[in-house]
Formats: sequence, structure tokens, C-alpha cells
Amino acid sequence: MRDDEIQVTYRLETAGEVEALATKIASDQSTGTFTALPGETEEVRARCAARVVSVTHLEPLAVPSIPQPGEAGPFNRADVVISYPLEAVGTDFAALQTITIGGVFAVRGLSGVRVMDMALPSAFATHPGPQFGIEGSRRLTGVEEGPIIASIIKPSLGLLPEETAAAVRVLCDAGVDFIKDDEKLMSPGYSSLDKRISAVMPVILDHEQRTGKKVMYAFGISSADPERLMRNHDMVVEAGGNAAVININSIGYGGMSFLRKRSALCLHAHRNGWDALTRHPGLGMEFRPYQKIWRLLGVDQFQINGIRAKYWEPDESFVRSFHDCMTPIFSNADRPLPVVCSGQWGGQAVDTFERTGRTLDLMYLGGGGIHGHPMGAAAGVRAMRQAWEAASRELSLQEMAKDHPELKASLETFGQD
Amino acid sequence: MRDDEIQVTYRLETAGEVEALATKIASDQSTGTFTALPGETEEVRARCAARVVSVTHLEPLAVPSIPQPGEAGPFNRADVVISYPLEAVGTDFAALQTITIGGVFAVRGLSGVRVMDMALPSAFATHPGPQFGIEGSRRLTGVEEGPIIASIIKPSLGLLPEETAAAVRVLCDAGVDFIKDDEKLMSPGYSSLDKRISAVMPVILDHEQRTGKKVMYAFGISSADPERLMRNHDMVVEAGGNAAVININSIGYGGMSFLRKRSALCLHAHRNGWDALTRHPGLGMEFRPYQKIWRLLGVDQFQINGIRAKYWEPDESFVRSFHDCMTPIFSNADRPLPVVCSGQWGGQAVDTFERTGRTLDLMYLGGGGIHGHPMGAAAGVRAMRQAWEAASRELSLQEMAKDHPELKASLETFGQD
Repeated sequence: MRDDEIQVTYRLETAGEVEALATKIASDQSTGTFTALPGETEEVRARCAARVVSVTHLEPLAVPSIPQPGEAGPFNRADVVISYPLEAVGTDFAALQTITIGGVFAVRGLSGVRVMDMALPSAFATHPGPQFGIEGSRRLTGVEEGPIIASIIKPSLGLLPEETAAAVRVLCDAGVDFIKDDEKLMSPGYSSLDKRISAVMPVILDHEQRTGKKVMYAFGISSADPERLMRNHDMVVEAGGNAAVININSIGYGGMSFLRKRSALCLHAHRNGWDALTRHPGLGMEFRPYQKIWRLLGVDQFQINGIRAKYWEPDESFVRSFHDCMTPIFSNADRPLPVVCSGQWGGQAVDTFERTGRTLDLMYLGGGGIHGHPMGAAAGVRAMRQAWEAASRELSLQEMAKDHPELKASLETFGQD
Repeated sequence: MRDDEIQVTYRLETAGEVEALATKIASDQSTGTFTALPGETEEVRARCAARVVSVTHLEPLAVPSIPQPGEAGPFNRADVVISYPLEAVGTDFAALQTITIGGVFAVRGLSGVRVMDMALPSAFATHPGPQFGIEGSRRLTGVEEGPIIASIIKPSLGLLPEETAAAVRVLCDAGVDFIKDDEKLMSPGYSSLDKRISAVMPVILDHEQRTGKKVMYAFGISSADPERLMRNHDMVVEAGGNAAVININSIGYGGMSFLRKRSALCLHAHRNGWDALTRHPGLGMEFRPYQKIWRLLGVDQFQINGIRAKYWEPDESFVRSFHDCMTPIFSNADRPLPVVCSGQWGGQAVDTFERTGRTLDLMYLGGGGIHGHPMGAAAGVRAMRQAWEAASRELSLQEMAKDHPELKASLETFGQD
């Protein structure tokens, strides 16, 4: 690819010819209107015309992704690469989103379109990227090797600040490296962020005083208002905190850009709402292009579900997401820490290790698997560490459990899967 | 509805029982985890539990909205109303989005979910809403009655600033009330915003000097960075401009909140990317709840396509959108000016008038219908005004065209539909 263009791969689906649809998209996203116009000269077209680079045909579908009443099919499919001149788009993500993503979904005559990937030229390396990423997350948590073991406050909503603080104390004593608010917890009436910070941070700092270990606590600071977001950020910093959960889709590119420029916190991204964009396999967007944009905007840690998650996402999709996060865009420094989560209790450690490239550069986040461990939370954390030790030593969980009673208890309690 | 709750209507689809799915969503979006936990007391549940208010069954589907390999169906459907306590959500749109919209799409066991509507309690009236809206748009354009006749620069991309300025002069002389940049035009290399403003605004101001009429020009100021967005805004204000095109999905809630607090411009919203959320009828989100959020955030003018648009959207969907915009959330002042656009040239005026409640409170935006008129742009504008006069006088376009040669020429040139 030339360094003065942006290449976007779309999976297109249509009852017509994919080639014609691809040409129409390239035209619509540059100079197109519905009738021939005097000003649309060759010169204008050359300046900003998008062009179809390749069309790779796939098996047609009998049933269209979007219902097409009265249309019989088959619905032809192809992966189509379209190139946009950098000169015509620029490096602002609002322009990239509008021209290369948003507009495509409005085009007539398609029964499906999914953005599969996006290749960005080096001009995009001017975006800040992660401030902490993998290395910074290790430095701040003091976890030099192995997965960063994490947990979440449960129940996820409804606790008063002092109840949250009590749960934090249990988790600190249990030996976790990281704790987070549920992504749905920001600053509700019963647990305003200022009161929650005031209740939680003394527990974190007291634990640090006593043990030398500073547990990273990510507070839910999201707000649709960037200035409130910053006030929330500042409260965490002033109280001695070092991390925040941000709901990236709910604050938007604007909120994220504003925060990243000023942030002193490790930004733990929850992609809440992403499922609406990606769950139908013929529509929306793959995680691959999506995460590139958010990484360049500054995500430090990226929640990506896990093997046998409690949500809809299939394991293969999680595995792809993990590899996406681990693949540099421009350099290793733009890689976020992958956060493996959702229904995790240790039982998925060996499979995760085997399927994600045998790396221990990850955060492994357990909720119920820690809080609900029959021998208590500390045993839940130990069981998770034992599971990862098994993975890295190439032992099965069952072998490891023989002389590790905490893991044994986890297998017995949660090991249906 | 009580004033201390938020009610959201979802269209749910599942191979299982809709009631069970609804209950699961209400639980997941409040306290849920995958195993029973000691802290999840009755007290906690009462504080923030969502509850299912009603389930209205619909015809089941044979084919699921999201493919479910190996599952036979039928796929049961119902419109389900879930109530969330205001205490647990608050009025921040990031929280509303995360809890009541985003998370729902991740739930296992559904084959479709669409957010149909959202009823907000009066606490949300504290959001700013439109600064100009219908009344302000009329005041700024000086159009006291009838539709505000608008156009867009064509070709939409590729013109140099001085070429844009030349097109603006043609449109001013043609008699339009409003001109806009294409939503895909922000600040590319060949037409940076500062140079475009410097080229265009003298034309607008000169026209005002000569005729007394200040044509509203909406510059594309979108940026993923709220501070750049504000610098763009300020450049327009300093040059004497009074409007801007904003790609709301590309700047996000964060960009919009930041802008609205400081804006001196009439904000013309393009919902580019919305199609990805709404095009599949069983997935995503209706325009109705979507536009409520953006209106409260401050949209003044809302692009909603039109009858026989050049995009995929069916006419019925446009008509619903128009009514949505015209329906007060808390008061008439929170209504944006509906912008009827896409393939419009006057031929849809009578149908639009009849189907949208016989109002003339709208912007009617023609691109090719003006630029491509065989008698020139001024005739294109006159033809559009004649078409609306026909509508309000209850004449057919053909009757009106008898003694109006411009409309007659439009009908002959564009009147295939």
C-alpha cells in the first residue's frame, strides 16, 4: 500500500453485481450525486476519487443479511478493498469515520456490508496512542511477569460507597492486582463518584502502606460531558488513584480525545455497545478496524471478553480480538493490554494461553469466580494464579489441581464447562 | 410513567421465551453476575433493580434477525418495556447509553433486539436542547414563513476553496436561503477549513451587502478532537458565519456536549453512520429514541432524508422521523428544524406536505435538482419554491407547472418518479 492512501476492506453483499456496488460506493464516498453535474471534472475526480483496489468473491448467501422483501437472491458476496486518498480524508478520525465507515451503510442496493479491516498510512502515527499500554500497566501494578490478576466489584450496581469499600478491602486482602467498577457504574445518586473515591481510595492506600503493593483501582469516570469527565479524572488523581474505566462508545471520539490529552490515569476501555455493531456477521464492523481507531486515540487496556464468555461472543471472535490487540499498528508501543474477562474463573486459562499465542501479557479478570469461591476470595485469586501457572507449565488444570486445593475447589464449583 | 424512572421499549426476538429474556436483561443491566453472590441482598436489588413493565407479543419470525446456526425457530418476538430507576442511572447520557442501550446487545440467547423508544423523566430537561431550533433557524435566515430552501455544494468533494466560493456565488444569486458543505467535507488538504471560510464568507457577506439577505452557510467543522472542533467553530464565527454541519456520530456525545456549551452557531446535524444502527429492522435502534438524545444535547437542524430519497431508507421511515422531530420531548423549544433532503428537487413537495402533517416548518434541501436544472440554478430554486406553493395551495405539480416554466422543466428533467 502507498503511504498516501487509506485502504478499507468491506464485506459487501448484494442481489446485484458486487463490482458495480463497489464502484458505486467509491463514487458516493467521493464526488457522487444523483445526476451529472457541470463541476464534476476529471481534475476534481483525480483529487479525491476513491478507487476499488480488489474484489475477492465469497460464497453467495441464500438468505440476505438484511431482509429484502420480494427479492429472491442469491445474494452475492465479496471482500472489496477501496482506497481513499489521504489528501481527501486527512487524519482526523471524525473524517475517517464519516467518509470511510458511516456513509457506506446508507448506500442503496446492498443487503449487507461489514467493515473488515482498515490500513492506515504513517500519517496516523501522530495520534497519541496508549500512554501506558502493556508496559505501563505492569509498572503501575508492579506485576513484572505473568498475567495481571483482576477483579470487579460485585454486585455490579447497588452498593453504597462504604459497601464498595468493604468489597475492595476483601479483594485487596485476597491478593488481586487490579479492581474495577462495573462499566455500568459511573456516578449514580446512591454512589456518587466523589463519595465512592473517598470511601475506596483510603482502603487502597492503607493496603499499600501495610503491604507495599498498590492495587490498581479503575473508577468509572465516563460522562457524556468532557469537562465532567475531566473533573471525574481529576478527583481520582487527587485521591491517589491511577486508573479509570471508560465506556468508549458512550463518550465518543470527542470525549476520548479530550481525556487522553490531559490524562494521568491508565485508561481501561469497556466497549459497551460494540455488540450492536458487530453481532450480525454480515453487518457492522469487525473488532479489527474498530480497535485500531480506539488504540490510536489512547486506550491502555482493552476489555475483549474471553473463552466461554457469559455473553453471545464466540470463542473464535475473542481469539481474533486478542491477536488484533497484540498486533502493532505502527509500533509495539501502540498495543493495549488485552483484558480477558466475562465468566472467567481460571478454568479457561489453559485454553486461553494455547489459543492466543502463549503469552502472559494480559489482564485476567474474574468476578464471580473470586467472590463466589467456596473457600473465600483469597482462594479464588490463588486458584486463578494456579490455573495460569498450569498453563505456562503445560499442565492440565486437573493435574495442577491435585496439589492445589483452591484450584481444585474452583474446578468443582465452576467447572461445568 | 413515574417521574423517577426511565422507560425503554425494546423489540426482543428469541428462540426461547421472550418473558424470560426480558427478565434476564432487566437483571443483567442492574445487579447480575453468573453465580449467586453473598452481597446481592434484597436491599441492593431494591436500590437499582430494573423491572419489566410490559410484554406485548408480536408475530414470530421464521428467519431470525441474526443467523442462529442449528436453531430451528420460530423466533418469538415482543415489544418489552423495561423501567430503570433514575437513581441508578442519573441524567448523564453516557450512563443512559451504557446501561439502557449498549449492554443489552451483548446478552446471550437473543436473535434480535431493537431499541424502539425511550421515555425520559423531567430531570432530563436540564440538558441544553437546541439553541436555535425552528424559530432560531427562521430568524437567522430571515425566512418568516414557508420552507427554508437549501442547497449543498456539488460536487460534494474535490473543489478547491475558490471553486467552492464560485459555487456559493451561483447559489446565492439563485436565491437559496441556506447552503451547506457536504457532510464528508471537513478540512482535507485540498480545501482546509480556514481557506474555505476565507473564500466563502466574503461571497456571503457581499451578497448580504447587495441584497440585504444573509444566506446561512453551514461549514463542515467536525473533528474528533473537541478543541479543534471549537477552533473550527471560532473561525466560522470570526468570519461572520452563523452555522455548521456536524457529523454527530463521528464526534460522539463528548464532542457535541463540549460544542453546545460554547456554540454561537446554528448546528445542522448529519446522522452519517446512523444507517449501521437502524437499517436491519430487527436490530439496532429506531430514530425515535436516538433523536431524543441528540436533540437534548443541542441539535438545531436534523437531516432526515425525504420522500423517494436516493438512499435505502423507505418513505415510511422518513415520515416517522419527521413526526419524531416535530414531537416535543419536554416543550416546543426542544424541537429541531427537520431537514428534508436526499434526491429532493421539488417533485416530492406535495407528497411530503401531505404525509408530514401539512406543515411548512422544515428545510427543503436540493442538490442536483438545483445545480442540474436545465435553465440554471436560479430556475432550480424557483422550481422548488413553486412546488411548495403548489403543495400549500393544494394543487398538483402538473397543474402548477402549467404557468410555471421552471417547475415544468424540473418535472421534465427529474420527474421520472
